[in-house]
Amino acid sequence: MTDYPNFGFQILKQDAQTNARLGHLTTPHGSITTPAFIFCATKAAIKAASPVDLRNVGADIILANTYHLMLQPTADLIAQMGGLHQFMGWNAPMLTDSGGFQVFSLGHGSVAEEIKGNRDLKSPPMLKKITEEGAIFKSYLDGSTQVLTPERSMDIQRKLGADLIVMFDECTPFHVDKKYTSDSLERTHRWGDRCLKEFEKEHAGKQALYGILQGGVYEDLREQAAEYVNSRPFFGNAVGGSLGASKEQMYEVAGFAMKYLRKDRPTHLLGIGGVEDIWHGVGLGIDTFDCVAPTRMARHAGALVRWEKGFKLNLRNARFRNDPNPLDHECDCPACQTYSRAYIHYLFKAEEILGLQLLTIHNMRFMMRLIETIRIAIKEDRFLDAKKAWFQI
Amino acid sequence: MTDYPNFGFQILKQDAQTNARLGHLTTPHGSITTPAFIFCATKAAIKAASPVDLRNVGADIILANTYHLMLQPTADLIAQMGGLHQFMGWNAPMLTDSGGFQVFSLGHGSVAEEIKGNRDLKSPPMLKKITEEGAIFKSYLDGSTQVLTPERSMDIQRKLGADLIVMFDECTPFHVDKKYTSDSLERTHRWGDRCLKEFEKEHAGKQALYGILQGGVYEDLREQAAEYVNSRPFFGNAVGGSLGASKEQMYEVAGFAMKYLRKDRPTHLLGIGGVEDIWHGVGLGIDTFDCVAPTRMARHAGALVRWEKGFKLNLRNARFRNDPNPLDHECDCPACQTYSRAYIHYLFKAEEILGLQLLTIHNMRFMMRLIETIRIAIKEDRFLDAKKAWFQI
Repeated sequence: MTDYPNFGFQILKQDAQTNARLGHLTTPHGSITTPAFIFCATKAAIKAASPVDLRNVGADIILANTYHLMLQPTADLIAQMGGLHQFMGWNAPMLTDSGGFQVFSLGHGSVAEEIKGNRDLKSPPMLKKITEEGAIFKSYLDGSTQVLTPERSMDIQRKLGADLIVMFDECTPFHVDKKYTSDSLERTHRWGDRCLKEFEKEHAGKQALYGILQGGVYEDLREQAAEYVNSRPFFGNAVGGSLGASKEQMYEVAGFAMKYLRKDRPTHLLGIGGVEDIWHGVGLGIDTFDCVAPTRMARHAGALVRWEKGFKLNLRNARFRNDPNPLDHECDCPACQTYSRAYIHYLFKAEEILGLQLLTIHNMRFMMRLIETIRIAIKEDRFLDAKKAWFQI
Repeated sequence: MTDYPNFGFQILKQDAQTNARLGHLTTPHGSITTPAFIFCATKAAIKAASPVDLRNVGADIILANTYHLMLQPTADLIAQMGGLHQFMGWNAPMLTDSGGFQVFSLGHGSVAEEIKGNRDLKSPPMLKKITEEGAIFKSYLDGSTQVLTPERSMDIQRKLGADLIVMFDECTPFHVDKKYTSDSLERTHRWGDRCLKEFEKEHAGKQALYGILQGGVYEDLREQAAEYVNSRPFFGNAVGGSLGASKEQMYEVAGFAMKYLRKDRPTHLLGIGGVEDIWHGVGLGIDTFDCVAPTRMARHAGALVRWEKGFKLNLRNARFRNDPNPLDHECDCPACQTYSRAYIHYLFKAEEILGLQLLTIHNMRFMMRLIETIRIAIKEDRFLDAKKAWFQI
């Protein structure tokens, strides 16, 4: 039986009106408060920001992707260099995914679009075959044939050495039918058991394994998935897979998942991290979120700012050309403390790298301010009021 | 008569064996110790580094380029935004060039190659005409026709608001003959007088004007140029133009210039900043240097490191793939304190922006450590010994 002596999860406060909760998650590389947002250092680096920048905005946990790292620079090299924490200079909690999400997403369409139900037909089919054994796919780097199995995913994640790791699952796409989703779910559960078995073989107490809940948009399959992960000795659970074609459906499906999941484990929502999504997800009882959107948006001149038309300002817009205001008057980040919108608008026009750096820092700080607002609201028993206030601008 | 009440230059220590000197240069935005290296924020931003990064490595003065900024975002916009210091968040001494160097370099060949005598025939001729009035050229951004005159250069530099500004000159290329160089020098001196006249018109004590010494590779023309700038009320002097086809010729020509220049003014060497060049230039009595090489090299995976084969390591080299050492054991920069060569090698291979950021910070810190070594050596009367030691690895 797997146990996790160096890990812990305590619920410090339960909201009275919703399932929102304040928690404390302990790992060998430190503790974090939940709800938490996990920034994506996809290829062992946050794009355009350093670990020091992350720490300075208040971030305390990051994620790296098994799929990218197994291909380059390889898990063996990272292990030889002392593991991912040392390799990338991040001495704090870290999560890796199983690699499955990218393997299956690249097989069916683009990653971000697929999870939201919008199939991108332009993407090349990189997934060659799914068998009981695992998945055979082509490397995005050199086209070489690669195999990912539950055992290999565990082995790679062990070598990378993140604190929190996840089981290998099939992320079923939105466009498949219920029969496929159901068959896939059963195989995913067999894969989950193989992951647990492999994990326990060399379990040195340094890592904790999360189960993943699939089941597409079907409530009964989500219930079946919850029963599976609830009954296995995972440290935490993660909600994955296609959550539907619209925000409404996404919230409905996330609701199905959270309805059946046990409440004593930390629960992660995979790859979803829009501003509304986080407020909604926290209300459902989700503890951690990850999403590339805040940093990716920054590289496309999008600033996360609360304003009358939503949460994004496009800094390329000509109206910012001579705007002396900071990006966001509410924000305490270095970009907002020092620079005008006019300067950042100019940096993007002049294609200066500093533009990416400043918006990335700002967007990371925005996410941390959002999370800090939520944490305080739960603590002070005013989660729903705080949610309402956040959307009133 | 121009004077500079808010500026000062004191020689604190004169080396006994060479012309090297330790100085103190005061501007309205603070003081710097000389010798100093001026980092190039060409388009009002250091590529891949923030002003905070610059401060953290010990940099105390930067340069921005009139040519680029007059075209985008324009001097008027920068003035409207409170001037260049405020626009780019740099509250410390700053220099702008006259714009002439880029106008003439882009007319004859590439900037960096031309100054070193290697004409790059591939560059498009952007310079349309040089007249007594000024230079007519095509914008590198949109091909529009632009005019730069001594008066316009002063007006633009006044709007940008750097502490140290320079006269508008013709930077003669290496391949022209002595007759052209001599005629051009005389026109440059007429332009210098027009700059002084224009500068004095609206001289509010916030800026100090440098004269520029041209004259190509000819000692008598350099002498004539020195006589000109020495006799005019410039705050400092800058050595510009073609310094020859080889390092030996460059040092010879810089020697001609320094032989005739008055010693009581701060003296800048324009666009030259190789490691050997700085040691040599300081020995000739040059106080400040600027060069894009340290930061440009970083963006091409070149790390400034003292090792048996020189001062540059190419981090793309496969031998760094699993090298656990820091870039440079001698270095105290954040990149060397945290990361391995293997990680930085990987970042360049994976095309992660963080690779540029880390090498840029390292190279900037390398230049500051070089400058600090030189300053201490002059202070302790062992400049030549320190120079010898620096090249013994």
